[in-house]
Amino acid sequence: MVQVKPTQVLELLAATPLLNSITPLSERNPSSSIQATCIFAASIHPQDKMAAVNQVYIAIIGAGGVGKCFLSQLQALAARRPSPKLSLCYISTSRKALYNVDYSPVSLDGVTESLAASTQAPPPLPQVIDYLASAPAKVILVDNTSSQDVADAYPLALSRGLSIVTPNKKAFSGSYKLWQDIFTAAATSGAKVYHESSVGAGLPVISTLKDLVDTGDKVTKIEGVFSGTMSFLFNSFAPTEGQGGKWSEEVKKAKALGYTEPDPRDDLNGLDVARKLTILARLAGLPVESPTSFPVQSLIPKELEACSTGDEFLEKLPAFDQQMEDTKAAAEKAGKVVRFVGSIDVATQQVKVGLEQFDRSHPIASLKGSDNIISFYTERYGSNPLIIQGAGAGGDVTAMGVTGDLIKVLSQIA
Amino acid sequence: MVQVKPTQVLELLAATPLLNSITPLSERNPSSSIQATCIFAASIHPQDKMAAVNQVYIAIIGAGGVGKCFLSQLQALAARRPSPKLSLCYISTSRKALYNVDYSPVSLDGVTESLAASTQAPPPLPQVIDYLASAPAKVILVDNTSSQDVADAYPLALSRGLSIVTPNKKAFSGSYKLWQDIFTAAATSGAKVYHESSVGAGLPVISTLKDLVDTGDKVTKIEGVFSGTMSFLFNSFAPTEGQGGKWSEEVKKAKALGYTEPDPRDDLNGLDVARKLTILARLAGLPVESPTSFPVQSLIPKELEACSTGDEFLEKLPAFDQQMEDTKAAAEKAGKVVRFVGSIDVATQQVKVGLEQFDRSHPIASLKGSDNIISFYTERYGSNPLIIQGAGAGGDVTAMGVTGDLIKVLSQIA
Repeated sequence: MVQVKPTQVLELLAATPLLNSITPLSERNPSSSIQATCIFAASIHPQDKMAAVNQVYIAIIGAGGVGKCFLSQLQALAARRPSPKLSLCYISTSRKALYNVDYSPVSLDGVTESLAASTQAPPPLPQVIDYLASAPAKVILVDNTSSQDVADAYPLALSRGLSIVTPNKKAFSGSYKLWQDIFTAAATSGAKVYHESSVGAGLPVISTLKDLVDTGDKVTKIEGVFSGTMSFLFNSFAPTEGQGGKWSEEVKKAKALGYTEPDPRDDLNGLDVARKLTILARLAGLPVESPTSFPVQSLIPKELEACSTGDEFLEKLPAFDQQMEDTKAAAEKAGKVVRFVGSIDVATQQVKVGLEQFDRSHPIASLKGSDNIISFYTERYGSNPLIIQGAGAGGDVTAMGVTGDLIKVLSQIA
Repeated sequence: MVQVKPTQVLELLAATPLLNSITPLSERNPSSSIQATCIFAASIHPQDKMAAVNQVYIAIIGAGGVGKCFLSQLQALAARRPSPKLSLCYISTSRKALYNVDYSPVSLDGVTESLAASTQAPPPLPQVIDYLASAPAKVILVDNTSSQDVADAYPLALSRGLSIVTPNKKAFSGSYKLWQDIFTAAATSGAKVYHESSVGAGLPVISTLKDLVDTGDKVTKIEGVFSGTMSFLFNSFAPTEGQGGKWSEEVKKAKALGYTEPDPRDDLNGLDVARKLTILARLAGLPVESPTSFPVQSLIPKELEACSTGDEFLEKLPAFDQQMEDTKAAAEKAGKVVRFVGSIDVATQQVKVGLEQFDRSHPIASLKGSDNIISFYTERYGSNPLIIQGAGAGGDVTAMGVTGDLIKVLSQIA
């Protein structure tokens, strides 16, 4: 692709009346901007041309914790970078939506309040995609949900030329077919899809793994702590120095501090970590079928799986403390500590999630607070891995990954 | 900028004879591809058009340790990614060059041998830039030297539309005026400039700092071990466990293992670390004037600065061991270890390089081998920094940073 200043294209078009009689190119390829430009030249007012070609439309689905942080970062970004003009053309929650059929921008000022006050319900997703694909400029769809339904619509959106940035793990850790459909659609239409925050929030995990693979390094093993909740729990339960508390008490404390899901079993079942491992394994070249197609150790005692509420679970958990105490003691006997980790052995194609023992001096053992740590072992890096460490959860750092992706897409499409 | 498939531009041009009479746009802006395309349409054979627009020319200066690794990665990349076609149009060392005036590609097969056998001397840099700026496709200039002369030519190259990727620290850690000239030239012409490997080799240090800043985070402090040589020396001299050897012996061992420059004083003077700090401080927003404009502690005893050779220096170094031994003992007395670090305090605008004490459990203290570690303290990440760790030197990992940058530029210009 050659980059051409849109104003120059318009000048050329204006200088050549003959062009107005050229048959419009197929509407099936919305990523081809020359087509959009030709349509403009015929159908919009001359004073709108500049505006139309110097802007990128942003459409947002989801306005929860991460979504609100992203909105604030987007507003600051739009103010800092006047070109291309970033115009919000659509925003929705599961129950409400804000957009204008003529694509006139939705103001970012007080958008959360405007959305809450809206009486529009979000149209069905295929209709939203139709609306966005017909926009008079390129569109970046930001999915700030954790919805499987939205994720399932990515192949359609991408095939219609909409670029996607998202922290939503579901699209990349669901069925392998969905993964393939997403990247095939993107490759075919030229639309971009970025999902840095789907693993380790804003930490540069996905981009680093992609760089390693794209530059021809051979990743041999990926290992780490991929859950802020699990990190906090084990750093408190089995610290490298001192004794740590009882397991059930640490779980209660973590919940009180807001480190767990409302029902802590949603963290303790290991599925969140398994989803992240699925994404990294696929990027490393392993065709992992699903996050349940490899061994995942659940820390929920079998007897408590049927508890009807998280509170009931927490109430009954102390009866099972001895089990975790034995695990901790076994590690201590070997001079080690126990941690909840995920690992991918690329050569043997083994992916697993669960408890493992580490030397107290190991970086995984000496992690602090609720930090994540991800170690990439590769041919080029040899025995000492490339390590990335830091907060792997939280609204602001997750939104940062999304905003960073947005900037990357802008550098390529605008 | 709007992306237009070049074949579509050519189709439009072919369909409109009137265009042939349009006055060519100024030749002062070589980044404007519509101009290059117009020139082609008139001057090259139709069968060449496709080739010309689907390829990107690569020009390489420097074929030493990093250069050779990069060539091998480039060859693999060109084989893996057929589009855009990557054609080598220029390669040189300080004494030899290989290129064809008609821009026909230099074969990557056995290019090191062909270059060694060449009888062409490299033309003066302005002439090389002229040649590249007139190429019939976009050009990425890869500077694999550590030359100040090449670095000084970046503003001219960028203003002529050549994108640059490089591990060369000199351009970004020299005078602040050169830094400003480089980024002004790039912003004006639209050419790209990437230099990931100028700090921490292939570790994602520059890209992470840029992402933090670009997404609106406030970096408060950057701290780390930025030299593989210093890392190895202090991990051996003052290990977290055990005693470590004498300073002069560790320096000799490091040299024997190839961890130091031929004259170890080139590592021990701290300037290499000061250059890296200068780059990071500027990216964080501090207008640092030069790598000698802030305190840098040299580990070369004053009395040995005048030694005429590195060997003489090593011979006389044992007489000064007590000084380093005292430093180590002072740290031990406080239950700590001594490390050679660089730090940037953004709020107080303080940059410094030298010896500091760290708790044995601190990530900087427990570093292994010759690894680098870089900690970013930011508003969003709070008290636990975002940490990146791993090999910060070596041909393959340095070249990886260059190749990764090349891929990023390709995604934006091709």
